[in-house]
Amino acid sequence: MIRRIFDEGMTRAQCYENLRVLCKDVGHRISGSPSAARAVVWGHQAMKATGADTAFLQPVMVPHWERGSVGLCELLIGGQSRGRLEVLALGGSDGTPDGGIEAPIVEVSRFTQLDTLGKAGLEGKIVFFNRAFPPTTISGFAAYGSCVDQRVDGASKAAAYGAVAVLVRSMTHALDPYPHTGVMHYDEKLPRVPAAAISTLSARKLHDSLAVGKPVRVRLNLSCRNLPDVPSHNVVGELRGTEFPNEYLVVGGHLDSWDIGEGAHDDGAGVVQSMEALRILKAIGYKPRHSIRAVLFMNEENGAKGASEYAAQAKAHNERHLYALESDRGGFVPRGFAVQDTGAFLKAMQELKPLFEPYGMSEIVSGHGGVDIGPLGKDGTRLFGLVPDSQRYFDHHHAQTDVFEAVHKRELELGAAGMAALIYLLDQRKE
Amino acid sequence: MIRRIFDEGMTRAQCYENLRVLCKDVGHRISGSPSAARAVVWGHQAMKATGADTAFLQPVMVPHWERGSVGLCELLIGGQSRGRLEVLALGGSDGTPDGGIEAPIVEVSRFTQLDTLGKAGLEGKIVFFNRAFPPTTISGFAAYGSCVDQRVDGASKAAAYGAVAVLVRSMTHALDPYPHTGVMHYDEKLPRVPAAAISTLSARKLHDSLAVGKPVRVRLNLSCRNLPDVPSHNVVGELRGTEFPNEYLVVGGHLDSWDIGEGAHDDGAGVVQSMEALRILKAIGYKPRHSIRAVLFMNEENGAKGASEYAAQAKAHNERHLYALESDRGGFVPRGFAVQDTGAFLKAMQELKPLFEPYGMSEIVSGHGGVDIGPLGKDGTRLFGLVPDSQRYFDHHHAQTDVFEAVHKRELELGAAGMAALIYLLDQRKE
Repeated sequence: MIRRIFDEGMTRAQCYENLRVLCKDVGHRISGSPSAARAVVWGHQAMKATGADTAFLQPVMVPHWERGSVGLCELLIGGQSRGRLEVLALGGSDGTPDGGIEAPIVEVSRFTQLDTLGKAGLEGKIVFFNRAFPPTTISGFAAYGSCVDQRVDGASKAAAYGAVAVLVRSMTHALDPYPHTGVMHYDEKLPRVPAAAISTLSARKLHDSLAVGKPVRVRLNLSCRNLPDVPSHNVVGELRGTEFPNEYLVVGGHLDSWDIGEGAHDDGAGVVQSMEALRILKAIGYKPRHSIRAVLFMNEENGAKGASEYAAQAKAHNERHLYALESDRGGFVPRGFAVQDTGAFLKAMQELKPLFEPYGMSEIVSGHGGVDIGPLGKDGTRLFGLVPDSQRYFDHHHAQTDVFEAVHKRELELGAAGMAALIYLLDQRKE
Repeated sequence: MIRRIFDEGMTRAQCYENLRVLCKDVGHRISGSPSAARAVVWGHQAMKATGADTAFLQPVMVPHWERGSVGLCELLIGGQSRGRLEVLALGGSDGTPDGGIEAPIVEVSRFTQLDTLGKAGLEGKIVFFNRAFPPTTISGFAAYGSCVDQRVDGASKAAAYGAVAVLVRSMTHALDPYPHTGVMHYDEKLPRVPAAAISTLSARKLHDSLAVGKPVRVRLNLSCRNLPDVPSHNVVGELRGTEFPNEYLVVGGHLDSWDIGEGAHDDGAGVVQSMEALRILKAIGYKPRHSIRAVLFMNEENGAKGASEYAAQAKAHNERHLYALESDRGGFVPRGFAVQDTGAFLKAMQELKPLFEPYGMSEIVSGHGGVDIGPLGKDGTRLFGLVPDSQRYFDHHHAQTDVFEAVHKRELELGAAGMAALIYLLDQRKE
């Protein structure tokens, strides 16, 4: 059966062509944008085309943040302009006042340095968070985890001491000219100061400028803004269960993306793989015991409102969700699955390893399922995440380089087939 | 110690920069060419720069095949020209007579079809071998193994029935416009007919043309030729053993490449990784028990003369070679190692898995070591091959797309560090 699933997935897959359409015809699709609305319409049609018994939209209110015009950041050394630094406003950041902000730069790599510098060292300054991905950390996600606090919490941490804005080194191992955006949060007890990602090459330039000894200032201009929430949708497709139609397995990814690049790896890949998993099971004539849903969640990037709405609706309708599997780590070659457990259930799942060995995806490890299925987990659903190789992911993550061409057809298809295989095995499982 | 090796390899690696120089300044480097001679000079210098105790050149005579001008292949349907098909002469092929060969096309996918067609069906024809990589075969190398007989033996198999030339579908899963060359052999008892690779897109065009029903002919023009053998060299670097200086461990790749692209994955990656493994061990101050050699073999692609010469010299000088590790499957993210054994030794090596798990390269499986270390294996050396992920390799293999930009810095470095770690573990091993 596993062989049949992979044979179907490697010969008649539609996920790569679906991804091309999502990336090239819909494009990037931040929550609340017209293109996110187009993505919902596209997703609904594409879901029907999988052969799902039903496909429907689930309404949800989502945040609406707009970048406005591209951010500008000018470097000034000893009062002389030294050209532009490559920046992108972080998602959720307020803009600068008209005319921008010009202020001296203070570089830090740890939050504790802010406490040491204090108000005397930070008031009126722009804080430059420059902690780099550690090169010796092998997993891209582990490296990300060790740095992303700068992006998420840096603005408020700096504002607590009177800083007027922050620049945050992009979350990537790569040395490149592309700023990588991503979500940030304000502590509402503190002033809301503008925050932008700076490319790793521009971070090096800024760092080197500070080393010279002359006064270094930057002029930052961001026209982003937060607007009232707007209506949007999750997209849901379903194969009806034959034995337990009101018990569910979910396979999903998120339909929204950041507002640059094409959201190909993040998370166009997960979207098309989830639909492909459903298509494969239908195409080989599998009659599932439980109902199987592919869910394209809205708003993972800046609010996860689709995630919480899906879980709330499941609870309200008394739909028991047994298992959920998310693909949101890119469309690279699959290495295995993360199981959000450390005990007996993880062990039981690791017994499936030999079934996945012929496909090179037998690494079944303890780890995070995914942001979108997280709320289901709180209600007792067992959570899984597809784990692709992570070496290339942060080259593209939240940057303009996250485009269709960066996704490899067979790698994408292998992941989708593996997801279908795991869903099949979970559907057959007697607890 | 393994951690120290990886920390050195992920922070101060020189292999990516070395690969850039080899690809961009030396370029492609087929045996016997001026650029292969430049590669030897470069390799000798780069080997010294690793900190090797000694670095020397080992003379070897190698085949000399020249492509000449680019091959031409014109498609004729019902006597009308339908444009060009993308082809590249196979390595070792003789050229066509002046003015080329024009003949009808016969498509086959298996050698047994030749026997069925016989002289009546094949005499005076050009045979088009169009057996595709099976999409359901997961490993790229397994797919290659199931098709490459067409390229290696197709010409003589067809010549046996009077065919005048052959076109062979390129060895790749990808549907692309790039012909993938590679070695072919003549059965010297049969006429030597010209042989060329045809891109998968052109193969589709030719296949579709045959389906129309009108007479399909092609006009093939190849100006390649075989010339007398010429002198060249293997490049060898050595860290002298402290306990058993006359017992050797070898880590190697091949310095020659095909005469298109830049030989980045095949096998620039193996070349720079082998030198990097030596550099890492030297840089961390490791004093090996046995002598460790990095060997850049000449002429893997079309003769493996460097391989046999190295083994012959080892035997002649009574240098006992315990272990040899080759990297010749591309510079992609490493998954583990192949051990050329199926018994107790393989089992013993699989006990090393936990040491490689933190680096994502713990797949220690039975498999081929490599062409260059093969002759050592016949004299009792234990053979190993680095096993990177294979999904993308045949997109680039022997094609113009095998360029530096297709290699990922961290993936290359991880492979090199893993090789250093395995060599360290083997050096420490008490049999």
